Amino acid sequence: MLKRVLEQLRPAEAASLGPGDDCAVLTSTGDLVVTSDTMIEGPDFRLAWHSGYELGWKLAATNLSDVASMGARATALTVSFACPSDTPVELLAEVSRGLDAACAELAPGCGVIGGDLSRAPMLFAAVTAMGDLEGRAPVTRSAARAGDVVAYAGDLGLAGLGLSLLFANCADANGEAQSAGLAELRSQHGAALSAQFAPSPPIHLGVAASEAGATAMMDVSDGLALDANRMARASNVTLELSSSEIIRSFGAQRGVKVPLEAILEGGEDHGLLACFPKDIELPTGFHPIGAVRERQDAPVQVDGKSYAPRGWDPYTEYTPGLTTSKERA
Amino acid sequence: MLKRVLEQLRPAEAASLGPGDDCAVLTSTGDLVVTSDTMIEGPDFRLAWHSGYELGWKLAATNLSDVASMGARATALTVSFACPSDTPVELLAEVSRGLDAACAELAPGCGVIGGDLSRAPMLFAAVTAMGDLEGRAPVTRSAARAGDVVAYAGDLGLAGLGLSLLFANCADANGEAQSAGLAELRSQHGAALSAQFAPSPPIHLGVAASEAGATAMMDVSDGLALDANRMARASNVTLELSSSEIIRSFGAQRGVKVPLEAILEGGEDHGLLACFPKDIELPTGFHPIGAVRERQDAPVQVDGKSYAPRGWDPYTEYTPGLTTSKERA
Repeated sequence: MLKRVLEQLRPAEAASLGPGDDCAVLTSTGDLVVTSDTMIEGPDFRLAWHSGYELGWKLAATNLSDVASMGARATALTVSFACPSDTPVELLAEVSRGLDAACAELAPGCGVIGGDLSRAPMLFAAVTAMGDLEGRAPVTRSAARAGDVVAYAGDLGLAGLGLSLLFANCADANGEAQSAGLAELRSQHGAALSAQFAPSPPIHLGVAASEAGATAMMDVSDGLALDANRMARASNVTLELSSSEIIRSFGAQRGVKVPLEAILEGGEDHGLLACFPKDIELPTGFHPIGAVRERQDAPVQVDGKSYAPRGWDPYTEYTPGLTTSKERA
Repeated sequence: MLKRVLEQLRPAEAASLGPGDDCAVLTSTGDLVVTSDTMIEGPDFRLAWHSGYELGWKLAATNLSDVASMGARATALTVSFACPSDTPVELLAEVSRGLDAACAELAPGCGVIGGDLSRAPMLFAAVTAMGDLEGRAPVTRSAARAGDVVAYAGDLGLAGLGLSLLFANCADANGEAQSAGLAELRSQHGAALSAQFAPSPPIHLGVAASEAGATAMMDVSDGLALDANRMARASNVTLELSSSEIIRSFGAQRGVKVPLEAILEGGEDHGLLACFPKDIELPTGFHPIGAVRERQDAPVQVDGKSYAPRGWDPYTEYTPGLTTSKERA
């Protein structure tokens, strides 16, 4: 099984020793960034809806976006995978192909350098991603300054729309995922479903934002409003968002009309929220959506009014009784 | 829950930014080593037998030994943890205390720099460990040379003995773990049970072996004979083990008599198997157990005779019908 997995993977350029020994060996120019993110069958994904390839792609993309958001160049992933003993080898090979393809497309040179494979009652994938800061200072979420421009790059609300469509059209009354109707939904709403199953965040813009002088940056995984709230609290400022700027740049994406509420509350897009000094030119791909102010009563305002994010979790939203304790460290 | 976890953890010395942002930031002098190892409730551990503290300790120790075996100094861990939603917060705090204590004792300066926390039907912990080579070349398992001395540092067979005692005394007819009788077993066989629950491999000897000129090294997690077999195949040599040398140094450990078969086949000790040029003085803590020869028919010989390792897995040994696909990449 491990052999089939490894066959799918191109080596990481920064790895002088890949899988097969007790450790892989990775070169870094000095400071590197490290992040971990886990996806578990049930709370985080449902194989009735998407392929193993898409799962692998999303696993890579969601971790690469965390690396990008620090202004680092992603260099390597490790993947700890667990699955039932009757899992077809071909499913794992597909997941591996998705991991490999996402690295090649979103972060060329980055690759899987190691991991392990265990048995569990459901699919479980824990990814750790590493990136090289190449001498740049890390861009944190805690250094936004009053007067900065707030900008965003990537899809915004599209992945959440995709999930709404899935629960509305391809789930039973209990919220259980079903594949009936999926092909039709994919043909009608390809952009939203692709954003949900295999997001393509603008990973390359992480380094570009850092080089352009971004003061703060983070990846938006839980919805713009909630993540803006986190950045505002960490920086002790208020992010004032402008609905007209948001709608101008994100009201239509990939041919899909996306309403303001979906933009503010939808999760899993994994694009980059960043603050820039107001006198600089934004890197191509970033769109202004507001301004940073001295801290007001609320960490986030929309058009000058306090905005309380709902707090977004795809599966608690849609599946009554199912709560998740997922938090990121 | 995350707050209680983080309260238990000392910062890693090499981390200029710890948990809380999209990534942690880690300093490395250049090349670093990376390894991942996962422990899942059921195949890998059973909470009826040991504390959360011991689980955390073992999670750290088993990953630190992989870092040590490359000749690197361990600097950081990430921990992806998943558990049922009714898991007591205090259990996670205990696991964290164990992780922290093992780092402080076995690899001072190393610490947890990030991770994530999710929900799953059973406990699941995926650790990734990183280490700094500090300018040294990595010591792989594939460069043992005919003429080298084979040596080992750490416990050998003791952790496996502990597990045998547990299945013999604290499991029902189906191999299900039970806590009845555990206190008595701990009082009578403390050394073997400690080796099983909270191993203390000689992590500091990884760097010492590299500096002394070790040609090959690996951590012994699946039994001396099986891991020696892997090293011999990777290096295209035969490891000729000497039962008299083995018994002289490992026949009694921590006051416990350990038979040759337990030494050769017991797993989970996580000590260091290394090959050294025959003219050097072994670092204190390493004991000679044989010699490297040109490749013979068998990768491993004991006293000149071919030796076929059984292939060791604690839970398939003891629990009929339970097979595991665990493999390390």
